[in-house]
Amino acid sequence: MEFEFVDWVRSRAPRSDKLLLGIGDDAAVLEVASQRCVVTSDMLMDGVDFVLDDTDPRRVGRKALAVNLSDLAAMAARPVAAIVSFAAPSDAPLDMLRNLYAGIFQLTEEYKISLAGGDTNTWQHPLAISVTAFGEPSQRGFVTRNGASPGDVILVTGSFGGSLLGRHLDFQPRVAEALALQERYRLNAMIDVSDGLSLDLFRVAEASGCGALVDLNMVPIADDARRLSKQRDDGQTPLDHALGDGEDFELIIAVSPEVACQLLVDQPLGIAIARIGEFIGERGLWQAMPDGTRQPLTVCGYEHQ
Amino acid sequence: MEFEFVDWVRSRAPRSDKLLLGIGDDAAVLEVASQRCVVTSDMLMDGVDFVLDDTDPRRVGRKALAVNLSDLAAMAARPVAAIVSFAAPSDAPLDMLRNLYAGIFQLTEEYKISLAGGDTNTWQHPLAISVTAFGEPSQRGFVTRNGASPGDVILVTGSFGGSLLGRHLDFQPRVAEALALQERYRLNAMIDVSDGLSLDLFRVAEASGCGALVDLNMVPIADDARRLSKQRDDGQTPLDHALGDGEDFELIIAVSPEVACQLLVDQPLGIAIARIGEFIGERGLWQAMPDGTRQPLTVCGYEHQ
Repeated sequence: MEFEFVDWVRSRAPRSDKLLLGIGDDAAVLEVASQRCVVTSDMLMDGVDFVLDDTDPRRVGRKALAVNLSDLAAMAARPVAAIVSFAAPSDAPLDMLRNLYAGIFQLTEEYKISLAGGDTNTWQHPLAISVTAFGEPSQRGFVTRNGASPGDVILVTGSFGGSLLGRHLDFQPRVAEALALQERYRLNAMIDVSDGLSLDLFRVAEASGCGALVDLNMVPIADDARRLSKQRDDGQTPLDHALGDGEDFELIIAVSPEVACQLLVDQPLGIAIARIGEFIGERGLWQAMPDGTRQPLTVCGYEHQ
Repeated sequence: MEFEFVDWVRSRAPRSDKLLLGIGDDAAVLEVASQRCVVTSDMLMDGVDFVLDDTDPRRVGRKALAVNLSDLAAMAARPVAAIVSFAAPSDAPLDMLRNLYAGIFQLTEEYKISLAGGDTNTWQHPLAISVTAFGEPSQRGFVTRNGASPGDVILVTGSFGGSLLGRHLDFQPRVAEALALQERYRLNAMIDVSDGLSLDLFRVAEASGCGALVDLNMVPIADDARRLSKQRDDGQTPLDHALGDGEDFELIIAVSPEVACQLLVDQPLGIAIARIGEFIGERGLWQAMPDGTRQPLTVCGYEHQ
C-alpha cells in the first residue's frame, strides 16, 4: 500500500513558503518567525474519539487536525504546518484513507498550512491517527493558561454542551478569533475547552494559583445541549451538559476588568464573547449564589482514560 | 489513569533551556537556532515494530524515540525535543507505561533533549506509540537525500543485517556521528537505513536522479547477519540479510571522491566508515562484476504494509 498512497498524499500535500523541505526526505524543515516554535500533538482512536463505521472519514481527518489547531489557538499561535501519522486496519479501503486526508486537506487549505510529513502504517487493529501541529507565536508572544489573577474576568467564546450531536467533529477551531483578540487586547490566560467547561476552567485557575467563581446564569448554553438533555431524559440539564460535556473547542480567556469592559462592548469577533464570572483568591471552582455568597461547584468533564 | 500518570511523566520529563514552555499547557514552545526547525515523526505498533509480550517496555520506548533521532541524524540536525503520544490497552499496568517512558528518558538524557509534551490514551487494542522529534540544523545547514551526483562515492557507517536479533531495538542513532561528519566534511546526500541497505540506497539514487553501483564485496556484514543466516538456514546468505533486512539505522552518505579519500584516511568516528560503491549516471541499482561490467541488483527491503 505505502508507495501508492504516499505518492498520492505527497502529490496533494499543501505547502506554504514556510515549508523549506517537505514530504520525501528523512525529516521536514520548517521556517518559523522569531526562533520560536509552538508544538502540540493529539492522538485520536476509532471507538474512542470517533466511530469510523458511522462517520465520514473526512470528518475524522478534519477533527484530527482541528483539535490540534484548537490547541495552537489557545496559545494565540499562528499555525504553520502539521505532521500526520496513522495506523490503519490492513483491510482499510484506500478510499477511506484518501477521504481521511481529504478532511485534513480541508483545514490545511483553509489555514494555509503545510502537510510536512508523517508515517503511514497498517496493522490488524482499528484506526489510530496522531497529528502534531506547529505554529509560531504572534508578534505579541504566546498566551499560557497560568496567567490569571484574582479579579480577572472569565470570558468565553461561543456556547457549550451537546457537542456529541455532531459539533465535536465539525467545530471550527478558534484560530482566527484568538489571533484577532491577541492583537488588540491584553490576554492574561487562555485555554481551549476540550474536556469540559468546568474542568478546563478549573485547570486555568489551578495553573494560575487562584480560584474561579462562575455565575451559572451567564453560561452560554448551546442548542445542542438542550437537544441532548431532552433526547436523553436522564436528569442532566442543559446547563449540566454545558459545564461537563467537553469537545466544544471554544476559548476561556482571563482578562483584567478594564479589558473585559472594552472587549464586551467591542464584541470584535463574528461569535459572541460572554462574561461568565471572575477569578478569585480562594482556590477551587465556585458558583455565585443569588444572595451574594458562593458554594463549591463540582468539577466535571472528560478525564482521558 | 491520566492525572497520576501525566503527573509522573511531567515530574520526570527532562527539559533543556531550549524548552521555553513544557508539559502542562495547551502546547509547548521551543527555541530553535536560525528560525529553522527540523521535524520528523514515526509511529510504532505492538505486533508490527515490536512484540510487547516478549520485550522489555524500556527497549520499546527507547526504540520509539531512537528511530526519530536516526531521522534527524540523516539530516545532520541536532535534536532539541520530542513529543510522545500513545494509545495503550486499558488494562496495561502502570509499571509497563513507566518503563516505556524510562526507555524514552534514557535517550532524552543522553542527547540532552526535552520531552515537550504528548497525549496519553487508553483503548481496547494493542499499544501504538507515536513520537515526533524536533531538531535544528547545524551551522552548515541540513543534508537531504537528493544531493548525490554521478561520480560521488557511497560511504556507509557500521555494518548491516540481522538487526532482528536485537539491534533493531538497541541501536545507537548516529546523531553524534552525523554532526561530526557534517562539521568537518562536505556531505552531498545522506539517509539512515531503516528499510534495508539496498532499498534506502536506491531511494537516495532515485531522489538524486542517478543510479548506484555497489561493490558487493565491500558491504560490511554484521555478525548478526551471519548468525541469522545460519539460524534460519533458508538459503538467505549473510549478504542477503545485509542488503535487505533493514532497521540497521546506519548512515549512507554521498561525498565527492576527494572528500571520500580524506574521510576514509581520517576515519574520524568511533565506528568504521566503508566505501561500498559509487553513484553513476544510469538510473537504478547495480552490482559491479569482477570483469568490470555491471548487472542489475535487486532492490529488497522492508516496504511498510
